[in-house]
Amino acid sequence: MSVVDVSAGGMSGHTGRYEKRLADLTGLYEDGEEHARLVGALGNPIVYDVEDFRPGDKSGDLIYGVTRMSPGRVGREFFLTRGHIHAKADRPEIYYGQKGRGLMQLESPEGETRIIEIAPQTICYVPPFWIHRSINVGSEDLVMVFAYPSDSGQDYGIIEASNGMRHRIVARADGGWELTENPAYAPRSTKTVNSLMKQHA
Amino acid sequence: MSVVDVSAGGMSGHTGRYEKRLADLTGLYEDGEEHARLVGALGNPIVYDVEDFRPGDKSGDLIYGVTRMSPGRVGREFFLTRGHIHAKADRPEIYYGQKGRGLMQLESPEGETRIIEIAPQTICYVPPFWIHRSINVGSEDLVMVFAYPSDSGQDYGIIEASNGMRHRIVARADGGWELTENPAYAPRSTKTVNSLMKQHA
Repeated sequence: MSVVDVSAGGMSGHTGRYEKRLADLTGLYEDGEEHARLVGALGNPIVYDVEDFRPGDKSGDLIYGVTRMSPGRVGREFFLTRGHIHAKADRPEIYYGQKGRGLMQLESPEGETRIIEIAPQTICYVPPFWIHRSINVGSEDLVMVFAYPSDSGQDYGIIEASNGMRHRIVARADGGWELTENPAYAPRSTKTVNSLMKQHA
Repeated sequence: MSVVDVSAGGMSGHTGRYEKRLADLTGLYEDGEEHARLVGALGNPIVYDVEDFRPGDKSGDLIYGVTRMSPGRVGREFFLTRGHIHAKADRPEIYYGQKGRGLMQLESPEGETRIIEIAPQTICYVPPFWIHRSINVGSEDLVMVFAYPSDSGQDYGIIEASNGMRHRIVARADGGWELTENPAYAPRSTKTVNSLMKQHA
């Protein structure tokens, strides 16, 4: 049993907690120099933290938790998570917005991008086989409750292997956001896609 | 993608919806005559409704949704759900309180009872192998978001086979609730318990 702190993030009854600082996001931003400057200027702040409840890793069971992400920018890009695909790639994930304004950036193995806007009371279903990353495009903390199968695992290397996700989310002058192509993006080969698209027991 | 209506229950983007009326709860209450009288007197009202999103029933995937239950009483008992164990009994479920005050009544195959109080922002984890039923002990709608593995299935017969759950939740004069033994309860045999306690693929 857990009680979610919508305002501050986190929850009671968690079995684990981790946090990521700005320096942990090295290599994710187009403006690496600005990122390095901010790590120093801001004293390497926490960008996001996660508290979760893990009953174990038996197939068929579920992990749930709360993630909180600070608002902020690195050049024209926003604070974001590293992003991952599940190690068992056919496992989905559910996010439920509690506070703030965020995006879930989804990318299929073949390179299709989908963006889901997340506000309080929005449930975002990440389908099996989709790479996903969350982005705080608002001016306050982004807080979400999540759940995913306990045997999912995370593969963070998939984004690095393609030199980032296919699109970047960048701020517009009017306070909104837009998609722009990532020129360094290296599409996955058919062989790589096929090896990802298998069902797991 | 779905947006949850915390006030009225339900959500956008659902693929299914069902509702249960008071007459559907025949046999669950200790005072069957009072139940029958209320079905007539109240015009067989909706007791609870569920809207869910089902991506399919592949193992490893997830179903999510919103349940809303009216406040009400049948004699000294409250409005409640039929209750079930998962057909694949090792599948868990997560409930997240959004509005109102409820209980999750949990019963292990061996007959142990646990009660989880659910208020807004309470996450209730129903562990694998536990029979569960929700009960509205408040004076307004009880609204919860839920998620469970898409291959779980529901077995509603398990409660009928033991002549109800081991305990009944009954109202106290001070507005609270308490547990009382169900004298008709028939404990499950060791053979039945053992056949339930197996891991599913």
